[in-house]
Amino acid sequence: MDEFQLIRQIQRETSVLVQGVKLGIGDDAAVLEIPAGQHLVAATDTLNAGTHFPVGTLPFDIGYKCLAVNLSDLAAMGATPHWALLSLSLPQADPDWLRSFTAGFKSLAQPCGVALVGGDTTCGPLSICLTALGIIEPGRQLLRSGAQPGDLIVVSGTVGGAARILDLLQDDIVASDRHLLDRPCPRVGLGRALVGHASACIDISDGLLADLGHLLKASGCAARLETVALPAPGVLGDLGDEQRWSYQLVGGDDYELLFALPGSQAALLETWRKELDINLSVIGKIEQGHGIRCIGPDGTEFHPRRACFEHFGEKS
Amino acid sequence: MDEFQLIRQIQRETSVLVQGVKLGIGDDAAVLEIPAGQHLVAATDTLNAGTHFPVGTLPFDIGYKCLAVNLSDLAAMGATPHWALLSLSLPQADPDWLRSFTAGFKSLAQPCGVALVGGDTTCGPLSICLTALGIIEPGRQLLRSGAQPGDLIVVSGTVGGAARILDLLQDDIVASDRHLLDRPCPRVGLGRALVGHASACIDISDGLLADLGHLLKASGCAARLETVALPAPGVLGDLGDEQRWSYQLVGGDDYELLFALPGSQAALLETWRKELDINLSVIGKIEQGHGIRCIGPDGTEFHPRRACFEHFGEKS
Repeated sequence: MDEFQLIRQIQRETSVLVQGVKLGIGDDAAVLEIPAGQHLVAATDTLNAGTHFPVGTLPFDIGYKCLAVNLSDLAAMGATPHWALLSLSLPQADPDWLRSFTAGFKSLAQPCGVALVGGDTTCGPLSICLTALGIIEPGRQLLRSGAQPGDLIVVSGTVGGAARILDLLQDDIVASDRHLLDRPCPRVGLGRALVGHASACIDISDGLLADLGHLLKASGCAARLETVALPAPGVLGDLGDEQRWSYQLVGGDDYELLFALPGSQAALLETWRKELDINLSVIGKIEQGHGIRCIGPDGTEFHPRRACFEHFGEKS
Repeated sequence: MDEFQLIRQIQRETSVLVQGVKLGIGDDAAVLEIPAGQHLVAATDTLNAGTHFPVGTLPFDIGYKCLAVNLSDLAAMGATPHWALLSLSLPQADPDWLRSFTAGFKSLAQPCGVALVGGDTTCGPLSICLTALGIIEPGRQLLRSGAQPGDLIVVSGTVGGAARILDLLQDDIVASDRHLLDRPCPRVGLGRALVGHASACIDISDGLLADLGHLLKASGCAARLETVALPAPGVLGDLGDEQRWSYQLVGGDDYELLFALPGSQAALLETWRKELDINLSVIGKIEQGHGIRCIGPDGTEFHPRRACFEHFGEKS
């Protein structure tokens, strides 16, 4: 199988009918039509084997996850995803691996209405770079800035699960909830719903505290979090409070949305929970000042022991 | 230097004022305004150390080349480049390396009017994935299909130089023309000029014969090339005819434009040569049928001995 056969196989197996594709895979570049009166939203993220997914992760899950983490970035902007470009570095051309990878990609691309419109394949260490393109109404994007003192801090789904699964895998323990690490659910529908309501939004990739920190820095605010309000997945059920909170506050890779919501909009939470069938937890409040205080059930401040993940940084 | 410092350094050092950037680096995704009545053109290409550039290539040149090869794809569509997203895998965070890399990137981005609007940095084997975004008038893109029997086959610049430099480097010979390999010139202005005139176009990355083959397959035609018409760079000057032709026909990485031009438009070649200060060589003709015949000065057919570069393939 040569490079051109690879490209054709990807093209064949990911074919999704999406509007606006004037020219897809097969020429020097893709040509796309942005609907009139819309802005383009673009994000790119790379997954390297051993860093962003454990070596031995199923190709199906790698195909799913490389799209999921990028759609999560678009969701955090409130954008509607449309198209993707894929750059795939593979140690060798293995048709079975590729078939499984593209099936995983398509399992998310199809329900999200995303068409693969271009990319390249190269020989090299396993690495996947994906660019996701979407659209949004001008001026309506959700930013990290914009949170105001008094706003509620809300998180979707659960947090800390992906980090726990990773730790269990490193200890050779098989976890039944591995999907928390391998198949994060990009909150595209929620992101769309938040447009015009949330005052600030970010997705959780580095960890709740780290990503909340980015949001607060951009907004010029502080935050108070209630540890008991943090939503926990079942895989944290066997842990004591402090260990669980640490995973929830510091563990990355959950790809949930973290947003600030003015108190006046709080009634919408119940609407979104029902309409989107999604867990939404109010975990704290935006305050004046800077920094994040995590308050335990006894009213004292809690400091997590784990450090957040950070490329090139040292874990402290 | 942590990941966020790296991103800020790239942002600071690549800042180019480009229209349409509603939101650049610093949030979850970029927001871009496509000019009314234009389509988006998107291409992505990865450069891996040791495959797409020799280990030891100057970081300045890597920064230049990762943008150049993608702008070359946009040029082959006749598009005007505007924005780029960069995904950078680095073995370690080295501020000096990064400063040189970003300087090289900017040395091309600035004159081409390209703004870096997003991306990510990860720890991993040296690899650069770049997505280039541009615009084009609806329906005006240059395709690989569209060539007609009788059209002239034209190539810009010279061909075979990058491959020769690579061979010299492998033999530890220092070549003065190393820019042919490290700093290919994306033919953005020529691509724009060809819109409405060329019947088909592609850029030469895999090699003249391989890329002409793609164009012919898409167009359903054959071609006759005249070996004596192939434009040679000085670095091929010491070679005999057959060796030189082989480099020119099979060597990849030149990033010149190869296009088909109806005979009725031939007078434009002189205009473009003068206005764009570019070398344009008529190297053959599109014919009916399929396949490529390379005709030597004695009228006999020439078959190059080198095979073209092809990822995952075997050199024959």
